[in-house]
Amino acid sequence: MIRLRPVLPVFFLMLFLCAAILSPALAKEADVAAPTPPTDKVFNAQTFTLDNGLQVVVVENRSIPVVTHMVWYRVGAADEPPGKSGIAHFLEHLMFKGQSYPGLGEIAPGEFSKIVRSLGGNDNAFTAQDYTAYFQTISSAHLETVMRMEAGRMRGLQLPREAVDSERLVILEERRQRIDNDPRAQFDEQLGEALFPNHPYGTPVIGWFHEMEQLSWEDATGFYQRYYAPNNAYLVVSGDVSVEDVRALAEKTYGLIPKGDVPERARTISPPFIARTSVKMTHPVVKEPVFQREYRAPSARQNAKDSLALQVLEEIMDGGSTSRLYKSLVVEKKIASSVSLSYISFAWDDATLAVGGTAMDGFTPEQVEAAIDDELRLLITGGVREQELKEAILRLQAQAIYARDSVAGPAMVVGYTLVTGSSLDDLETWPQQIETVTAKQVQDVAAKYLNPDAPTSTPFVNGYLYPPQTKAEEKAP
Amino acid sequence: MIRLRPVLPVFFLMLFLCAAILSPALAKEADVAAPTPPTDKVFNAQTFTLDNGLQVVVVENRSIPVVTHMVWYRVGAADEPPGKSGIAHFLEHLMFKGQSYPGLGEIAPGEFSKIVRSLGGNDNAFTAQDYTAYFQTISSAHLETVMRMEAGRMRGLQLPREAVDSERLVILEERRQRIDNDPRAQFDEQLGEALFPNHPYGTPVIGWFHEMEQLSWEDATGFYQRYYAPNNAYLVVSGDVSVEDVRALAEKTYGLIPKGDVPERARTISPPFIARTSVKMTHPVVKEPVFQREYRAPSARQNAKDSLALQVLEEIMDGGSTSRLYKSLVVEKKIASSVSLSYISFAWDDATLAVGGTAMDGFTPEQVEAAIDDELRLLITGGVREQELKEAILRLQAQAIYARDSVAGPAMVVGYTLVTGSSLDDLETWPQQIETVTAKQVQDVAAKYLNPDAPTSTPFVNGYLYPPQTKAEEKAP
Repeated sequence: MIRLRPVLPVFFLMLFLCAAILSPALAKEADVAAPTPPTDKVFNAQTFTLDNGLQVVVVENRSIPVVTHMVWYRVGAADEPPGKSGIAHFLEHLMFKGQSYPGLGEIAPGEFSKIVRSLGGNDNAFTAQDYTAYFQTISSAHLETVMRMEAGRMRGLQLPREAVDSERLVILEERRQRIDNDPRAQFDEQLGEALFPNHPYGTPVIGWFHEMEQLSWEDATGFYQRYYAPNNAYLVVSGDVSVEDVRALAEKTYGLIPKGDVPERARTISPPFIARTSVKMTHPVVKEPVFQREYRAPSARQNAKDSLALQVLEEIMDGGSTSRLYKSLVVEKKIASSVSLSYISFAWDDATLAVGGTAMDGFTPEQVEAAIDDELRLLITGGVREQELKEAILRLQAQAIYARDSVAGPAMVVGYTLVTGSSLDDLETWPQQIETVTAKQVQDVAAKYLNPDAPTSTPFVNGYLYPPQTKAEEKAP
Repeated sequence: MIRLRPVLPVFFLMLFLCAAILSPALAKEADVAAPTPPTDKVFNAQTFTLDNGLQVVVVENRSIPVVTHMVWYRVGAADEPPGKSGIAHFLEHLMFKGQSYPGLGEIAPGEFSKIVRSLGGNDNAFTAQDYTAYFQTISSAHLETVMRMEAGRMRGLQLPREAVDSERLVILEERRQRIDNDPRAQFDEQLGEALFPNHPYGTPVIGWFHEMEQLSWEDATGFYQRYYAPNNAYLVVSGDVSVEDVRALAEKTYGLIPKGDVPERARTISPPFIARTSVKMTHPVVKEPVFQREYRAPSARQNAKDSLALQVLEEIMDGGSTSRLYKSLVVEKKIASSVSLSYISFAWDDATLAVGGTAMDGFTPEQVEAAIDDELRLLITGGVREQELKEAILRLQAQAIYARDSVAGPAMVVGYTLVTGSSLDDLETWPQQIETVTAKQVQDVAAKYLNPDAPTSTPFVNGYLYPPQTKAEEKAP
């Protein structure tokens, strides 16, 4: 029987894990011993496109004889048909269930990762709203092997019907563990639903349980046939390899696959926000109450300039122990035990900016909210100091430069960037661009997107997560 | 040029208008001079089905020489494809834009209603989440003419492309007037959206403005071709006509149309409610604050028994000036200037039960909410008195009996009933069934569906509509 693999797709884990280490836009807490502000490109990535439309990006790094090889499909949960939530992620699991393609060999169900491991490498995959990615990190001597394997399942999936039933149990269990047994994840899911009415981002990547239970072989293979094609993907290779070598290998492997007829991305759009929605949840295992607000804000693709300013704003508000929110709520007021503001610029449609905190014993989430609102008002009315701005920009630039030094990091960042609609050039010149952000711009984006007193057309939702109430409190919230 | 007709579909208007006059389940304030509890059928409706699958229902009423002729299609806004909200209603408008069918004649664009009026009749149409209906009320001498006309557009719509652009302006204007210029309607729309995540009832029948703007000739004719067919419709004729006459006429007209290949109804389902959502809206033209809570409750189709008890509950809580909510909030506490509880049992999926009130000067919607919750708790813990139950049932039965006496009323009620999945027998024996509802059942459904203190899995959302705030109040809600 097929061994149940923890393919663990899962965006949440992977994105935050990798992002915290690698992504310039997301990393926190980096050392600020400032490098010289960069003038050259971040990755010196090289790119070419095969005749079948597959864009290939290579980031050379010869420090160790290892490569990371990734394929990013421009399809994710937000491209699913209605009623089939979870199919993008389910398919990602099923992509390990056997393949055969002329000239690219065959792999039996469940063997893919075993082969990678037998060659000393590791592999995984993850699914998000806008993309699905597969990768291997392996000795550069075996790059051709994994390229052949990955290319082989781009159009050559041979999915046994029985694999679908057994793997469905895996994704359902995954949902139980990651969402349904985790009040914080449930809470985030509810906030996302409220923040994105009539838009697919409101549906969780992993899917709604009752819809996941019904996902079929036909759903998976139909989705695969529609979206998996070289002209709907990016190939990113980083590490110990030259662009010439990758070109030769890509032509021998991915080059065998014809262009597909991929439908244009067509997503529904949310109606204007004319009311303020809030979500309150009480859960028996919650110990400390949490306040979380989620805003819709422009992604890098939608508005590169405002997105850069939001990245600086994020660093000023939540860039470690000297950041504004931490200093105010945790150190000075002692209202919150933790606080965060996070903005993920990588989205095809609207990005999400989340701000929130966990209340200290004796405080309510409403008090955390009020303290956060005070900091936002201070930012909007008072702006940021030049020194504060400069330090935040330097910390961000430092993170970008350190990102060069890993093998997998560049492939990850290049992938996020391209697959969510920004360009390689945007990425390469990011340190110079972030340096152009002014104090005025930071203040302006705060006023434009984060104003807690704005008319309700500013799209945000408020969330309050409470521990179980004592009898005496029962009528309070 | 085509004259822009106020086709005014609109469910809201029609349903409430007709329902208030006619529907046993919805009517209020009827005289309670009790008729003998009925033992015979309400309408003595007769029914037969044509070979093409069209079910026909006839309610004879010879009091005046007039008939109401209605066609109910089992398709509505909740059957629309994603991103095409409003297409069911838009098509309803476009159904007046020209037709031609072999054996059933031709009608030029815009002529349909003129012909009806020239014969001394009137006609209209309306669209709801679960159905679309067209009707004429006319001298019984002209029944054949309107049957031929209505049958002729069942498969014979000849929609000119230019009609789509001009009529789109009409529906957009309709949305502006009925929703976007009416804070109460906007508020209801927001509540509906929050109450039905991942279910099409969360999308307004009229559509989202930005999607309505994009609706095309292809969208309208595609929807029409897919759903308009005799086997996806009910024909209801009430008034001065015999079942034999209707059968002969139906065979000559609707009988010419072949059965269609109609897709099965497939709607997405909401995930479980695990958090409590509330919606707050402030609007410059609102004078008095409003509290409104909307629950999901079983429809008659889903749970006939609980639905009957909810109908009695509605009558007890809001059946005129002696009802519980009015007496408590308006007369005694003087917290609210008006209050209501309404339950519409006619739905294919979950029904909505709404309870709310408008605050008196000096009171907040939160105080109205608290007073309503007190009444609900009283009902749940204390139940209802036998006398109260008996009177409510008698009032409901009286309304059913009076409903017989109109011409259009029976056609309307028969249509609602069948098209939302209940049977003619359910309708005919409704007065006997409602009589079986016990005090215990009313108390039980209150506890099961309306408990304000229940765990969040009881699906409801709270709404608060505020007048513009004075400067001093600005930070309050």
